[in-house]
Amino acid sequence: MTSAHVATGATAAPARLLLGPGPTNVHPRVMQAMLNPILGYLDPDFLKVMDDLASLMRQLFNTQNPVTIAVPGTGTAGMETGLANLLEPGDVAVVGTHGYFGERIAEIASRQGATVALVPGEWGRPLDPDAVKAELSKHRKVKLLGVVHGETSTGVLQPLEELSRLARQHDSLFLVDAVTSLGGVPMEADRWGIDFCYSASQKCLACPPGLAPMTASPRAMEAVGARKEKCRSFYLDLSLHRTYWGTQRRYHHTAPVTMLYALREGLRLILEEGIEARIARHRHAAHALWAGLEALGLKLLVDESCRLPQLTTVVLPEGIDELDLRQRMLREYNIEVGGGLGKMAGKLLRIGLMGQNASAEAVLTLLSSLEGVLPRLGYEVAVGEGVSAASRVLAGAG
Amino acid sequence: MTSAHVATGATAAPARLLLGPGPTNVHPRVMQAMLNPILGYLDPDFLKVMDDLASLMRQLFNTQNPVTIAVPGTGTAGMETGLANLLEPGDVAVVGTHGYFGERIAEIASRQGATVALVPGEWGRPLDPDAVKAELSKHRKVKLLGVVHGETSTGVLQPLEELSRLARQHDSLFLVDAVTSLGGVPMEADRWGIDFCYSASQKCLACPPGLAPMTASPRAMEAVGARKEKCRSFYLDLSLHRTYWGTQRRYHHTAPVTMLYALREGLRLILEEGIEARIARHRHAAHALWAGLEALGLKLLVDESCRLPQLTTVVLPEGIDELDLRQRMLREYNIEVGGGLGKMAGKLLRIGLMGQNASAEAVLTLLSSLEGVLPRLGYEVAVGEGVSAASRVLAGAG
Repeated sequence: MTSAHVATGATAAPARLLLGPGPTNVHPRVMQAMLNPILGYLDPDFLKVMDDLASLMRQLFNTQNPVTIAVPGTGTAGMETGLANLLEPGDVAVVGTHGYFGERIAEIASRQGATVALVPGEWGRPLDPDAVKAELSKHRKVKLLGVVHGETSTGVLQPLEELSRLARQHDSLFLVDAVTSLGGVPMEADRWGIDFCYSASQKCLACPPGLAPMTASPRAMEAVGARKEKCRSFYLDLSLHRTYWGTQRRYHHTAPVTMLYALREGLRLILEEGIEARIARHRHAAHALWAGLEALGLKLLVDESCRLPQLTTVVLPEGIDELDLRQRMLREYNIEVGGGLGKMAGKLLRIGLMGQNASAEAVLTLLSSLEGVLPRLGYEVAVGEGVSAASRVLAGAG
Repeated sequence: MTSAHVATGATAAPARLLLGPGPTNVHPRVMQAMLNPILGYLDPDFLKVMDDLASLMRQLFNTQNPVTIAVPGTGTAGMETGLANLLEPGDVAVVGTHGYFGERIAEIASRQGATVALVPGEWGRPLDPDAVKAELSKHRKVKLLGVVHGETSTGVLQPLEELSRLARQHDSLFLVDAVTSLGGVPMEADRWGIDFCYSASQKCLACPPGLAPMTASPRAMEAVGARKEKCRSFYLDLSLHRTYWGTQRRYHHTAPVTMLYALREGLRLILEEGIEARIARHRHAAHALWAGLEALGLKLLVDESCRLPQLTTVVLPEGIDELDLRQRMLREYNIEVGGGLGKMAGKLLRIGLMGQNASAEAVLTLLSSLEGVLPRLGYEVAVGEGVSAASRVLAGAG
């Protein structure tokens, strides 16, 4: 691939194939939506955009929650919105940490003055519900159970239904990080009893980074209403966001209108394709990728039973320098892939197939480039084997 | 004017003339910059964009501060970044409240656990330095003095040099809200001894809303380093943002790349025009507007000596319904103007001439539309007088 430099606005950023943990590439219709004229944050035409967007987000989350908004910040702002609003000093939070983002939940929870009890898990495996149950049982009252649905650091898909049942049994709010999962695997916020769920615009929703769609159950909003202290964040105070996104339309911040136009268009594209069809496409592309990687003799970190289709983690063979590999992919093939985060730094390759990149083209391009780069780093592969194995899956004969 | 509907991305937002307190209209080059391909948050080409942007922001703030970044949120996120990082429980903050945004500073400061002492001021006048001095002297140690440079709620330009001197005398950090001021009036962050200064992308910087440029002095960063407790916000933790914007390039959040492209282009436009020329243009347009409004017999809230050129506040004549007036301006002329905020709700019209809208065209369009609407609301004007008076100023004969 050549590195096509698109010289608009004299910025001339190169057009990469983004196959890392996000951001992913953005559909031209989403780009075009950002050219809509700026509107004021209380303009009646803009308020219609917000209403429309809220309705689209509800469809994505599979929820009826009135409080379903796009937080004006990245996925981490969505995470902090949940924790800063649902926790206050004196509360106990139980947090599953089987990856980097579970640890981030714990870190943010503790900054709210809450007592945080960790349920550590192995990086690369889902949380053990028995361990969660045991931890929940240790406390007189657990305000919140927080877990990550799709761990971006490991590529694990966490089953949620049993954890939700445990949270209900202990009268705890159930907070779920769906940053990487939403739009790529099923999400049933209401049916699964999720009280607070957040995502990010730049992963499987395939929009530019900068917004965190989120939804809060009536039970969660009751907890917000019953707070003894104000939320430590004014910027992320859900009781204020609610009065702006709701019928009162009270000013709280100047809405990032351009990003909201983009997100609306991105969600429309998803619904035009159909959520189920899109999920199936992510699964299909992932199976092809996995077959190709395994044909090259590479080991995947996560067992297939709980592997996230949109984010595949490859255990780097002995002696391969992760940074060198990624830099060659970027420079020679114009492809971004991710390295390991936290304790996995240097040990993993993270390959994302998100949004439009959950495609045969992306899978085959990635495998060819790996077949080109790996031998030069001292890892011999049978060139063509990866691509062939993936092609067989893509043709439905895998 | 006709309401030109631009049908891109099927969103079809109307192209308004935005003459409220922000957002303002955006230059086509800034819009185009958003079409640059998405890049990963650690892509070497994107890191160059960040470095370039930091250097442009330093020029706007007139600072050498290494820590000069764009917070991934709106102006309020910039405000909260300052207060959440510089204040912790036990600290005393003195906050000038001569408008809605001064009150917001106080509110956010108190959510950090600080003791907040207010220096109330009249809405429509600058703060009284003697009152600030008296309040500072009441406390053994004041950690921070916070004031608003350009009060978006009243249109007052606050002189800063004396307040800065007082802050230094009391060994307090000096925090300045430059949301509405930056890019429209002079800003000398270093010379004026400002320790923390933040702005917003959608006012005189004339970019889409969603980013808060900010700069923190070495003294402010020392205070961040000397904290006893962690910052209550992880999302806005400056010690983490610093390691991402600085040479370490440590992941903290997924940068809102598209918005950063836009901001870079917007700042480039400002520097191409020249900061001084741009400030003079804002002043020139404002003088024309003021002459026009006064020729219509309208009263301006703020004395000319401390009137913000980019935001003019008009005291509504007795009997005029503010909402009715604004809705007619929007529906009939496709022009957005602002109403009063907080205790000024219903009593004020707020007219912004920001960025490209600090222009003869905007001034004359606005005055003509007011001359058209006001008589129908029962306020008689000599039609043409406002436009004529403004034209004389614009022609340099004012």
